[in-house]
Amino acid sequence: MPKQERSRRTYELVLDAAAAEFVRFGYSDASLGQVVERTGLTKGALYGHFSSKQDLAAALRRHLEAVVEELLGDIGQRQGQGLAELGEFICSVAERISADVRLQAALRLADEEFRAGGKPSVLLASVQEMSRKLLRETEAAGRLDVALPLDAFADLTVALLFGAYHASGELSGEELPQRVRNMWSVLAKLATKGAG
Amino acid sequence: MPKQERSRRTYELVLDAAAAEFVRFGYSDASLGQVVERTGLTKGALYGHFSSKQDLAAALRRHLEAVVEELLGDIGQRQGQGLAELGEFICSVAERISADVRLQAALRLADEEFRAGGKPSVLLASVQEMSRKLLRETEAAGRLDVALPLDAFADLTVALLFGAYHASGELSGEELPQRVRNMWSVLAKLATKGAG
Repeated sequence: MPKQERSRRTYELVLDAAAAEFVRFGYSDASLGQVVERTGLTKGALYGHFSSKQDLAAALRRHLEAVVEELLGDIGQRQGQGLAELGEFICSVAERISADVRLQAALRLADEEFRAGGKPSVLLASVQEMSRKLLRETEAAGRLDVALPLDAFADLTVALLFGAYHASGELSGEELPQRVRNMWSVLAKLATKGAG
Repeated sequence: MPKQERSRRTYELVLDAAAAEFVRFGYSDASLGQVVERTGLTKGALYGHFSSKQDLAAALRRHLEAVVEELLGDIGQRQGQGLAELGEFICSVAERISADVRLQAALRLADEEFRAGGKPSVLLASVQEMSRKLLRETEAAGRLDVALPLDAFADLTVALLFGAYHASGELSGEELPQRVRNMWSVLAKLATKGAG
């Protein structure tokens, strides 16, 4: 294997191992020793790429920002139907979370910062904003039950996703996306029942 | 002040200060020095009641268990109407969370244990169970939209509460109960619209 390729693979391996450690134990209890053990590499291999736990956390934070941009880009490209798009958006977020241990880790670290007095994660803020936007579009198109208070319904959408995320024992695998899809289909059916 | 009364007040003061510290920083980053500072007492006053951080966490865990029993007792005494009861139950949980910093702390500690491979918090498990039970009763009484898949709707109720909890910047105060009430009223209205 060429040296550059081997170096890139080590980087990916280490970042995934660190993510798995952060998901389980949070920032402070994550052990770099355990991260090294998860990779089967040497400590030097880790420190060749990341100088500290902070450095790993910063890489995960950048990843979260990139993923959010990507998810917002995907939804921005679709031609609006409002409610259907909102459903696809939150289901795609759930799928992305369960497929991506780095995203899971970044969300846990962001939660910790939020509780310590920081801002909410960029994912939470984006889902809130997107929910309001798409629901306003759905309402403007006359597709939403007119009696629905939009802000509370947008809140419900956000809570659905993040409630499922926090109540899921296993973030990887099918549990989270399946629950989000099932809940969303209940909600979407209810929300359009009375619409003209 | 009699000595026993003073001792009891110190105990309460220390436990509240520890709870506020755990809410903000989680178990590992909570500092007993900061707890002492929050109380304005001496270190000796804290150690007179609690021998360690673990000891404080255990007291908070017992508190969580007692609160859940109390909340389940309250709902058990009411004469069933299913959906209305479920709404009152989750709103009362939200109110209790925002009024009780010890409960907030216990929930954070329980979340950390859940992510580290433990069981979900007794509150999460109880809300899940109670939602299913009350929705089955509502369905049996013919008050629920017949097309509603019960498990997904129960999941939605649980997600509503815990999603709002995790998305709220400030757990104390009116934000959390108000959001839960608003979301629930949307959901309850939607869920009964088609019922005979």
